[in-house]
Amino acid sequence: MKNQSEIAIQDEYADSFAWCYGCGRLNKEGHHFRTMWNGEKTVTLYKPKEAHTAIPGFVYGGLIASFVDCHGTGSASLALHRKNGFEPGSGKEPPRFVTASLHVDYVKPTPQGIALKAIGVIEEIHPKKFKVKTEVYAGDTLCATGEVVAVVMPASFAK
Amino acid sequence: MKNQSEIAIQDEYADSFAWCYGCGRLNKEGHHFRTMWNGEKTVTLYKPKEAHTAIPGFVYGGLIASFVDCHGTGSASLALHRKNGFEPGSGKEPPRFVTASLHVDYVKPTPQGIALKAIGVIEEIHPKKFKVKTEVYAGDTLCATGEVVAVVMPASFAK
Repeated sequence: MKNQSEIAIQDEYADSFAWCYGCGRLNKEGHHFRTMWNGEKTVTLYKPKEAHTAIPGFVYGGLIASFVDCHGTGSASLALHRKNGFEPGSGKEPPRFVTASLHVDYVKPTPQGIALKAIGVIEEIHPKKFKVKTEVYAGDTLCATGEVVAVVMPASFAK
Repeated sequence: MKNQSEIAIQDEYADSFAWCYGCGRLNKEGHHFRTMWNGEKTVTLYKPKEAHTAIPGFVYGGLIASFVDCHGTGSASLALHRKNGFEPGSGKEPPRFVTASLHVDYVKPTPQGIALKAIGVIEEIHPKKFKVKTEVYAGDTLCATGEVVAVVMPASFAK
């Protein structure tokens, strides 16, 4: 068994909800973003691929938006799971969130070739709705800030 | 020569600025979004790939964010190019914009297997700064709305 702190919330999504291009462990072509607790904050690490460029040398903003998006839904899932009494590694299926809105401010051009770190602060708006404020760093440089409003997956997503 | 109305602004970006993962014609792994005029509005069409899923059957929100992002910068480029007296097909290199901020509201789950259409309305905020409001449709269904603030590429992006 993995050390609990190494277990991401996405590692425990139900198989049927683990196909997301951003963070689904079962999506072979996707990014496989993985989000975990770091104290009271959340963290997601990812090193963009060479193809994920905007202008040569700088990371594509759409990739950063995707990173903020899945970091947000993963953070919301971590928060509600904890509120329900569970941590990643408990073996209990976590709640699955979807994005209601996404906002990203691009503070500085994001250099390529460096792992990105998303740090999230979570606020409960409503028992099924969370706001996640995110800072995206390349090394020590703050490159983007973001905000996701995530809601528990509505029944309309079930097939 | 292509009919002028079939020429996208991204077809005429300078080679050195045509590597964007979202809309760069030279990025072999990217989406190749292409944005053109449709009267006073702008349009970008794209059919997501099967891998671009959120939950099976529905399109990944990060892909929609990327679509809104490049549609926004492409629309801003079209607008400033027109203001400068040029249209796609003129052979004149268009101005290249980058994203200052991106906002997306996910109105409805976006079904997979259908081409998406982004429709943009452009507002000049400042001679080098444009706001693009976008509606994303799957068929006739409005699935997302977005807003991009795009600025003329700063010198800090030049290598």
